[in-house]
Amino acid sequence: MALESFFSPKAVAVVGASRNPAKVGHVVFRNFLEGGFQGKVYAVNPNAESLFGHPCFKSIADIPEKVDLAVLCVPAAMVPKAIEECGKKRIFAAIVLAGGFREVGNSKGEEALVAAAKRWRVRVIGPNCLGVFDPASGVDTVFLPRYKLERPGLGSIAFISQSGAVGSVVMDWMAMKGYRISKFISYGNASDVDETELLEVLAADEQTKVICCYFEGLKGGRAFYEAAKRVSAKKPIVVLKGGVTAAGSTAALSHTGSLAGETAVYSAAFKQAGIIEARDIEQLFDYARVLATQPAPRGSRVQVITNGGGFGILLTDWLSTVGLPMAEMKPEGIAKLKAQLPDYVVLKNPMDLVGDVDAERYRIAVSAALADPGVDMLAVIVLLQTPALTADVVEVIAEEAEKRSKPLIVISAGGRYTEVLKKSLEDMGIPTFSYPERAAEALKALLAKKK
Amino acid sequence: MALESFFSPKAVAVVGASRNPAKVGHVVFRNFLEGGFQGKVYAVNPNAESLFGHPCFKSIADIPEKVDLAVLCVPAAMVPKAIEECGKKRIFAAIVLAGGFREVGNSKGEEALVAAAKRWRVRVIGPNCLGVFDPASGVDTVFLPRYKLERPGLGSIAFISQSGAVGSVVMDWMAMKGYRISKFISYGNASDVDETELLEVLAADEQTKVICCYFEGLKGGRAFYEAAKRVSAKKPIVVLKGGVTAAGSTAALSHTGSLAGETAVYSAAFKQAGIIEARDIEQLFDYARVLATQPAPRGSRVQVITNGGGFGILLTDWLSTVGLPMAEMKPEGIAKLKAQLPDYVVLKNPMDLVGDVDAERYRIAVSAALADPGVDMLAVIVLLQTPALTADVVEVIAEEAEKRSKPLIVISAGGRYTEVLKKSLEDMGIPTFSYPERAAEALKALLAKKK
Repeated sequence: MALESFFSPKAVAVVGASRNPAKVGHVVFRNFLEGGFQGKVYAVNPNAESLFGHPCFKSIADIPEKVDLAVLCVPAAMVPKAIEECGKKRIFAAIVLAGGFREVGNSKGEEALVAAAKRWRVRVIGPNCLGVFDPASGVDTVFLPRYKLERPGLGSIAFISQSGAVGSVVMDWMAMKGYRISKFISYGNASDVDETELLEVLAADEQTKVICCYFEGLKGGRAFYEAAKRVSAKKPIVVLKGGVTAAGSTAALSHTGSLAGETAVYSAAFKQAGIIEARDIEQLFDYARVLATQPAPRGSRVQVITNGGGFGILLTDWLSTVGLPMAEMKPEGIAKLKAQLPDYVVLKNPMDLVGDVDAERYRIAVSAALADPGVDMLAVIVLLQTPALTADVVEVIAEEAEKRSKPLIVISAGGRYTEVLKKSLEDMGIPTFSYPERAAEALKALLAKKK
Repeated sequence: MALESFFSPKAVAVVGASRNPAKVGHVVFRNFLEGGFQGKVYAVNPNAESLFGHPCFKSIADIPEKVDLAVLCVPAAMVPKAIEECGKKRIFAAIVLAGGFREVGNSKGEEALVAAAKRWRVRVIGPNCLGVFDPASGVDTVFLPRYKLERPGLGSIAFISQSGAVGSVVMDWMAMKGYRISKFISYGNASDVDETELLEVLAADEQTKVICCYFEGLKGGRAFYEAAKRVSAKKPIVVLKGGVTAAGSTAALSHTGSLAGETAVYSAAFKQAGIIEARDIEQLFDYARVLATQPAPRGSRVQVITNGGGFGILLTDWLSTVGLPMAEMKPEGIAKLKAQLPDYVVLKNPMDLVGDVDAERYRIAVSAALADPGVDMLAVIVLLQTPALTADVVEVIAEEAEKRSKPLIVISAGGRYTEVLKKSLEDMGIPTFSYPERAAEALKALLAKKK
């Protein structure tokens, strides 16, 4: 069986569905009812007649129709038996959310789970995980309520996470920022389905343009390496590895029970496999956002446009630090700009449009820089606090960016007003950054994109 | 004359006050009227009879009463004359907001400004700056409207910035995050009052506990060094220097007209002067917030408490990277905790309270770790998405932190729900972080705090 039942099942059984809002089975059942899932959902719980007006079945066997996916919201001890019941009912995909297996030393429990899965040919994601969130199909086994953990909209970045906590925090944060997602998979102990198989699934997934991974250790390092090498030739893979130091590795051992290997060994292997390695969570998505939305640059020369001198300097520093050269616009382009802009505008790199800039001045400058053969990438600093700058600068920049296939990012920092306008830019496919450092690093990562 | 007139004047003249909302003089005059300033404000504009119901004076000389501070919102060419008028009226403090001086090559204009200031004994902040924001007195010359740029509340972090853009963005961002400020000074070209004098002012300011600086170059490097050496023995100074690379230095030259010196030379001097150097804007305030709110630690051993294993590992990695050792709680403390907590809680470092944690479990763990003689600092990861965790965990942690004089910070990441609760923690004096990396670096910086 392929793994599509995990992402686009026609019918789902929530085993352990519950009336009690503090129970995992409660949140998951409601996710399916209220989260936009188009298929059928069946609640299974021997102690309830009905749940939220839906009939509740005593056992998996009692469900009268065909089911593609079972979400097991039962304690660890009950999992092997539930998998057996899935097999008998010919449900070949099960997500096991419960912890209490290898990660707490219960290797026997995990072995029993794996044995049941093998025997009944049931593929398993988990245990000790959050499972799957797929905004396209509405599958959502993330057992954290939506008022506490918002879900991001449909986009082209896939995220697979060994850690449920890291995964859930990242989803919540993406939703706030307006970043979008194609698929989220928290796979926990990887007792059956592991990173390598998920990588293949995402490689074949048309919605997914960039694959992001967080893991602490790899069960099948060699297989992952080979798969990544193949996949990265077509789709960018960005990885953040936890447990990179000796202290972190010890902590990882007692978490998902995996031994985090030597940093240097992993990093070297990542590089050879064409994987882009991120330093932290924010960078993982900085990289993913530019790779998912921006074209491959023809070269590495960056033109900076700003309305605040200090920010231009900070960005110039960071571009230099990461090794990206400053672009030099052609004299004809500069001459044309000179004719159109006030004489106190600084037509260098950084190009400083100064504090009385309006949206139209940004249009002229961005258009000229994008058209200039001396420029490969554009970093536009927009400080939205300045008095003459109206909110339509956001559309102006997005319009100009659409006309040319050159990478363009926006750096903008401030408070609530700024955050709202940055979210609009993200919606229009323009990656935004708060910090010059992050922006420079992301442009650098974009060089890895295949033409 | 001392510089207090810049921060707590009894009467202010806004020269160039205007009816036109796009004008600097409009925004500044309204800031004084609507921003909580307790003293008197006089509008000066030869072309208006009254402004917002206030009488408007034809010239500075026409103001009938004593004035302590003039805010000059007039173009560069008119500035020397306006300073002369200030002198004649015995106003000995003037903030010059206009650009168009040395930073665009107009050295003559700046020399004329300085000559007028010297001759009439008027002290000048600026030109090419945003001037002063003092939330205690209500002085606010920042000419960016409050709906675009929010103002932070009164706190104990002072911020002086050579760049107006960097300064304004930072203020807006601080307001959104709930970070608080004692004084903000954007001093631009530093034609008269410079970093060194401002440092002395802030050293003597009781409201200020930490001094943050952003600059691209220093006019009087030696004087600043000597002053910093004296001040840093009493109050922490955190500096972010722009223009650290060769490319950045060239950009700085055309910005504030200052030549940014060699990075290594500056960094070495900072270190010798007891200055803490930040890598970026976020770090500047990460450092400032821990230094302003947390006691000096007795040692460097950190106990991590978490409800998400993956985050615990990431933080452990970063603590190790920055060189902070993991604390080892005493066996008695561990035994006591064992008796109070479920057996699946991981009583190591990181201490993993696991996903079904509630506020009370946090109380028990935080209280024990703070009391333990093996622990010098506490880093508490609180992932607010987990089902059983209620919002009162914020008060629980703040209460426990108050009982002991040990540094405690909180790491919490996610979306809007999380951001609201983090702001509450900031209000209660607990520094919060989104990223393990930032948190580890901030704890490391806290070691510099004098006991």
